[in-house]
Amino acid sequence: MKQLDETMLDLSPELAIVERAILHKFQSRSVLLNAASSYLVQAGGKRIRASLVLLAARLGPHYQDQEVIHSATAIEMIHSASLVHDDMIDEADVRRGRSTVHNQWGNNVALMVGDYLFALAAGQMAEVEDRRIFRSFARAVQRICEAELSPVTDVEPTDQAIKQYYNKIGGKTASLFESAAEAGMIAGGGSLEQVEALRLFGYDVGLAYQVVDDVLDFTGDEQTLGKPAGHDMQEGTITLPVIYAVAEGADDVVRQAVQADRPGAELIAAAVAEVRRVCSTKRAQREAERLVDQAIERLEPFPDGPAKDALIDLAMTVVQRKM
Amino acid sequence: MKQLDETMLDLSPELAIVERAILHKFQSRSVLLNAASSYLVQAGGKRIRASLVLLAARLGPHYQDQEVIHSATAIEMIHSASLVHDDMIDEADVRRGRSTVHNQWGNNVALMVGDYLFALAAGQMAEVEDRRIFRSFARAVQRICEAELSPVTDVEPTDQAIKQYYNKIGGKTASLFESAAEAGMIAGGGSLEQVEALRLFGYDVGLAYQVVDDVLDFTGDEQTLGKPAGHDMQEGTITLPVIYAVAEGADDVVRQAVQADRPGAELIAAAVAEVRRVCSTKRAQREAERLVDQAIERLEPFPDGPAKDALIDLAMTVVQRKM
Repeated sequence: MKQLDETMLDLSPELAIVERAILHKFQSRSVLLNAASSYLVQAGGKRIRASLVLLAARLGPHYQDQEVIHSATAIEMIHSASLVHDDMIDEADVRRGRSTVHNQWGNNVALMVGDYLFALAAGQMAEVEDRRIFRSFARAVQRICEAELSPVTDVEPTDQAIKQYYNKIGGKTASLFESAAEAGMIAGGGSLEQVEALRLFGYDVGLAYQVVDDVLDFTGDEQTLGKPAGHDMQEGTITLPVIYAVAEGADDVVRQAVQADRPGAELIAAAVAEVRRVCSTKRAQREAERLVDQAIERLEPFPDGPAKDALIDLAMTVVQRKM
Repeated sequence: MKQLDETMLDLSPELAIVERAILHKFQSRSVLLNAASSYLVQAGGKRIRASLVLLAARLGPHYQDQEVIHSATAIEMIHSASLVHDDMIDEADVRRGRSTVHNQWGNNVALMVGDYLFALAAGQMAEVEDRRIFRSFARAVQRICEAELSPVTDVEPTDQAIKQYYNKIGGKTASLFESAAEAGMIAGGGSLEQVEALRLFGYDVGLAYQVVDDVLDFTGDEQTLGKPAGHDMQEGTITLPVIYAVAEGADDVVRQAVQADRPGAELIAAAVAEVRRVCSTKRAQREAERLVDQAIERLEPFPDGPAKDALIDLAMTVVQRKM
């Protein structure tokens, strides 16, 4: 698999600025906040949302340095904040192979670290000229909150389950990708049409990103994922591979695992094996690829060049990733 | 006791706009968010922070309608958000005589309602021209988060306890009063000096507000407070009346109540009686009055008139209130 940094324009100088901004801003008077934040910053991440802002801006006609950096920094802060609170809701002990903030420092610290990061993001936004960026980020956070409280209620009827699934991941994941690409093109001085094209590009890439995440929950191994396979099912989260599996007549064990209150490891293992057997993860993977193709089509009106190539690469990397 | 609305300029038209904005904006696709938010909006509140924005703006030389309304709306949203999360941290079942959001709807909903309100506040801020207002609000939220994680660790040594206490309430309560008055004067077109004067005014009024709150926890009755007397002590929160009581040689029962892991109702009742007996609530009340006097002095350079009178009344009402 190609790495993001091999295929893209060299974003490392800007990403380094973003990284420093996050580290520098997160200096609090509270000892606990500082400790938890260092821990969080060290955990890092792929900074894919920041990259999306930076590349979308490069694709635009008038790259505005400060707007781009502040937007990229803000979106990573928002992303971190929402992960910390999301982990609280999911009662997840581990993320990327590391103990989560609430698991390490307790719920109160995690609650405040998230709020603090939201406030830091707002502080970044105060430095951004174009209000559309700001409005877009505020809306994205609202959609994330709504999605957190909108579960996929059952694996059947299939149509309803799929609709609920896309509604949920649209808010939970795609909304921030959408805002990242949109903000980037605004900061890149794009026209209304260009901004809209990038917004739709970001949204579809975000959906694909989450579908692949949900596929990897079945096909990945614990070492790469940092969590055991079937983790979502364990948590009672219904994802696309499971919906497809049941729709394709998988053994009842899948439905049992989904509907069980606290499914045991054996039931989960059996359900994971059955999902793999009916190859519904492949169908979900193809769906992610279709979304990425659709996203890439949005870029057609833009002139060819390194920024467009890098955005296409980013979108393709999203579906090719193994972790 | 005079009511706020009897003593001030008539703020009711603007406050009604703020109220409608809160109600109107809090329309979510999520059924749960909507339900919890209606509940929250109905609970209302004194809107004292919005009033502070509106009055400070009236005191300024160039009242800017939209800036003022958006700022006042945003600050009430921030206040609501932080109360919802604060109640989670305090594990408070009741606020103003009503069940708290997390008690009524669960922790996940409360977590998301708070985040959603922060995002709504950010959306309001996107409509505000002057970035100083925005920066001030973002900083206030950071300080609230820091204060939530900075407890008063012990009643002694007195100096240290008092310092920790003011540090805590400075962040938890005064920072938002500070931002409200500062934002109001910015939106009112005040000079740098005038903005600074209002900022300091707001901060001291905020400190006084919290000191009185902490006094009422000992002197108020359950019916007026919506919670039993000694509630803070029950929760292990060390406040000024307790610090003063111990410093003035109160019976050891006060220290015992503060240091107990889960103090029983009898111990709390005995400690409350002892705090009342040594009259340390009176000393704390005088301290609040001194803070308000100091706040009012900040207004001296401003010309007399209805806005100044109303701000003075607001400050005085803060220390005269009984609930």
